[in-house]
Amino acid sequence: MSKEITSREVDYSQWYNDLVLKAGLADYSAVRGCMVIKPYGYALWENMRDILDKMFKDTGHVNAYFPIFIPKSLFEAEEKNAEGFAKECAVVTHYRLKADPNNKGKLIVDPEAKLEEELVVRPTSEAIIWNTYKTWIQSYRDLPILVNQWANVVRWEMRTRLFLRTAEFLWQEGHTAHATKEEAVEETTRMLEVYADFAENYMAMPVVKGVKTANERFAGAEDTYCIEALMQDGKALQAGTSHFLGQNFAKAFDVTYVNKENKSEYVWATSWGVSTRLIGALVMAHSDDDGLVLPPKLAPIQIVIVPIYKGEESKILIDGKANIIVQNLKQKGIRVKYDNADNARPGWKFAEYEMKGVPLRIAIGARDIENNVVELARRDTKEKTTVPLDGLEERVQLLLEEIQSAIFNKANQYRAEHITEVNTWDEFTKTLDETGGFVSAHWDGTSETEESIKTQTKATIRCIPLNNKEEEGFCILSGNPSKERVLFARAY
Amino acid sequence: MSKEITSREVDYSQWYNDLVLKAGLADYSAVRGCMVIKPYGYALWENMRDILDKMFKDTGHVNAYFPIFIPKSLFEAEEKNAEGFAKECAVVTHYRLKADPNNKGKLIVDPEAKLEEELVVRPTSEAIIWNTYKTWIQSYRDLPILVNQWANVVRWEMRTRLFLRTAEFLWQEGHTAHATKEEAVEETTRMLEVYADFAENYMAMPVVKGVKTANERFAGAEDTYCIEALMQDGKALQAGTSHFLGQNFAKAFDVTYVNKENKSEYVWATSWGVSTRLIGALVMAHSDDDGLVLPPKLAPIQIVIVPIYKGEESKILIDGKANIIVQNLKQKGIRVKYDNADNARPGWKFAEYEMKGVPLRIAIGARDIENNVVELARRDTKEKTTVPLDGLEERVQLLLEEIQSAIFNKANQYRAEHITEVNTWDEFTKTLDETGGFVSAHWDGTSETEESIKTQTKATIRCIPLNNKEEEGFCILSGNPSKERVLFARAY
Repeated sequence: MSKEITSREVDYSQWYNDLVLKAGLADYSAVRGCMVIKPYGYALWENMRDILDKMFKDTGHVNAYFPIFIPKSLFEAEEKNAEGFAKECAVVTHYRLKADPNNKGKLIVDPEAKLEEELVVRPTSEAIIWNTYKTWIQSYRDLPILVNQWANVVRWEMRTRLFLRTAEFLWQEGHTAHATKEEAVEETTRMLEVYADFAENYMAMPVVKGVKTANERFAGAEDTYCIEALMQDGKALQAGTSHFLGQNFAKAFDVTYVNKENKSEYVWATSWGVSTRLIGALVMAHSDDDGLVLPPKLAPIQIVIVPIYKGEESKILIDGKANIIVQNLKQKGIRVKYDNADNARPGWKFAEYEMKGVPLRIAIGARDIENNVVELARRDTKEKTTVPLDGLEERVQLLLEEIQSAIFNKANQYRAEHITEVNTWDEFTKTLDETGGFVSAHWDGTSETEESIKTQTKATIRCIPLNNKEEEGFCILSGNPSKERVLFARAY
Repeated sequence: MSKEITSREVDYSQWYNDLVLKAGLADYSAVRGCMVIKPYGYALWENMRDILDKMFKDTGHVNAYFPIFIPKSLFEAEEKNAEGFAKECAVVTHYRLKADPNNKGKLIVDPEAKLEEELVVRPTSEAIIWNTYKTWIQSYRDLPILVNQWANVVRWEMRTRLFLRTAEFLWQEGHTAHATKEEAVEETTRMLEVYADFAENYMAMPVVKGVKTANERFAGAEDTYCIEALMQDGKALQAGTSHFLGQNFAKAFDVTYVNKENKSEYVWATSWGVSTRLIGALVMAHSDDDGLVLPPKLAPIQIVIVPIYKGEESKILIDGKANIIVQNLKQKGIRVKYDNADNARPGWKFAEYEMKGVPLRIAIGARDIENNVVELARRDTKEKTTVPLDGLEERVQLLLEEIQSAIFNKANQYRAEHITEVNTWDEFTKTLDETGGFVSAHWDGTSETEESIKTQTKATIRCIPLNNKEEEGFCILSGNPSKERVLFARAY
């Protein structure tokens, strides 16, 4: 076990913070609640972004960019949305600094440069985008609009955590406009499926697809669909949301189109997003007390080669062999790093790449070259094997696939053990406290009961799973009749 | 000539605005000075970004992300930098809105949510980054740091123009830290070369590499290197800058390292950036009165195929053939679009793709299929030729390369005709007014003369070209002796 980070057993929350810092994913910054995404963390984000971007394009979307500022009058146009975000808005009120007359070398805000109308730093872009769509949409021929934006957003959260909840974060936000309700609903669920596909097949993180209760809905949405993942401490994490916005924004911004029958109609909308929060989810879902465990499909480095040499002569010999291996692996499209830096011992390097979650490690010494073998170590299971150099690339390729599956299966197994059906209040609270995870229980469908459960247990309804089976039952708190179970959990 | 946009002859400035809007590159927004980058414009930016990003990575850089906000106290730490940007800073002063008690449904800034310290929306990130580097750098082993950031920045400019000068823009900013002055200077010029390579070999836009005078330097830099391009109206445009920052930021933020001799030293810095302004440059450098002319290497669509059909039967026949052509072109890595939408006539489509600057167009009708030919049209020269279907992909590939060269050569020819050596004040002003372009003239090296020339003629010193030849002469204004010519121009 690494001495550098707190173990999960001792303090899961501290383990996470230690890990994010030690693995070089992110850093605290001088700005309250904002983080610095370090190169290794950003490389991970680039991989995630590029895959998601391709998935969006493959489903017909294009990227665009809208202003970071939203004039207050636009921001408040869709009242529910505005109300939902008003409490956490960073607001620009001035556009100039000037020299402080009383303090040489210091600056003050120039009171004469006060904006006539304050600008909200976007916490989400529906308002500015729908105000723009108004000018883009006249006829049914202009629809659908399938636009995505990669951007930074700001939400002035009071309690922040690296990646999981930061005042500024990076995300993508899709904003689509449709002629009919059916098309918009179809888009909402299509993008939910894209998110689930990405979470499971790239992040190796099983998710439950579901719909939020009215209480947990995005401000301004008619329906919020979500994917919910489970972390190793038994807490749930909302990993992505896709909103059916109905005609709320179309009405707020008066966006209408002329249909084929020459009648004017309001446009239907969706929005959907995932953020750098996914990096937090990825860390929490798979990693261990020695550091990150990254799924090969997203790992910035998929395999690292560490030479074990004594003296310059053996180094030259190993360098030569290693460079051939590197070339061969690269030709297979494998992201490989050869670390022959001489400022650290092999043991230190091993620990470092374990911390960074590199899925595979090759150690190669002079004796190995004589025997035509290398030592291959898996990050996820810590297994080491000596394997022949012949056919190494194919073996690595297969192993990376195997690791990808193994990480998913492990997380899936954990989740299977942490979805518990309960039928009474006692079972419910006991399960939350002792087992954690998702608790599947009957609920009477009222916001009052939902709130009361939250107040008493800190558990929220994560979602009503899609394709939920109908089942008669009685609410665990009120005892009132219920037609289906919902998933509760304590959550990030 | 297109009836949709003003001609260059009539009003070059209006031509540019019309073109940016009509080609679907960008739109005005509800926020003063901020633009919406539309999907087609963003696709162009994505191509530029991806190529530059690869060039940065190939020269050893990694990406990271730093907060958008800079606390005022950090912002003012490097005094010259702060002074240079203070006049155009958007400032966040509050972090919450609340319901307006006097106006139902409206919001006001919550006076109780005033920040203790104001936050500047980054106009450039040296301050926040060097404050971070302080914690990353202890020893010479931590150097160099070669980091780049893709981000949005805000400069509250009073007079804005789509892409060329907007309050918010997208850019990349490299920020590197080095142990020695030599290394930092080398980095500065390395990145200038990268920019020049990109401008000439991808944007097909010849540039002059040079160094700025003290007057035109980046605030906080010891030296600013730049690439300067020439637009079709004879005005210059600064297309990229690379700054040698000396130890200014290291001193302002107290960033030192322990060298190999165990002595503490200040770190040396560079920063370098290009922005969405390059899109404006690209538009102005090559386009004509019918629309955009895009270099094939950057064009979102490199070739469009338009079917010419009468009736459903001929459409099916042409669709079949066109789809095969599309597949073959895609296999060669060519970005192709088949536009068989039936809501517009071929002539309308031709004009549309000319407006959008698609380098090649194929028109294909039933008769063509019988004859095993298609009509191929070049956007840059408007040449049309009938060519055999056999070997079409190879022909297209070669033609795209030829167009790339032709566009560069044309721009280069124009520039060659618009660099004029002058030796007297009369020649100088006459050339500026009649020929435009770069005017190569002697200057006495003083800021006073530079300012005076600017006031009298609106021409600025664009740069002192790198590898400038020594030549004795006399300043065109003061008549004082000079050792080399510098390049003047009126500029964007």
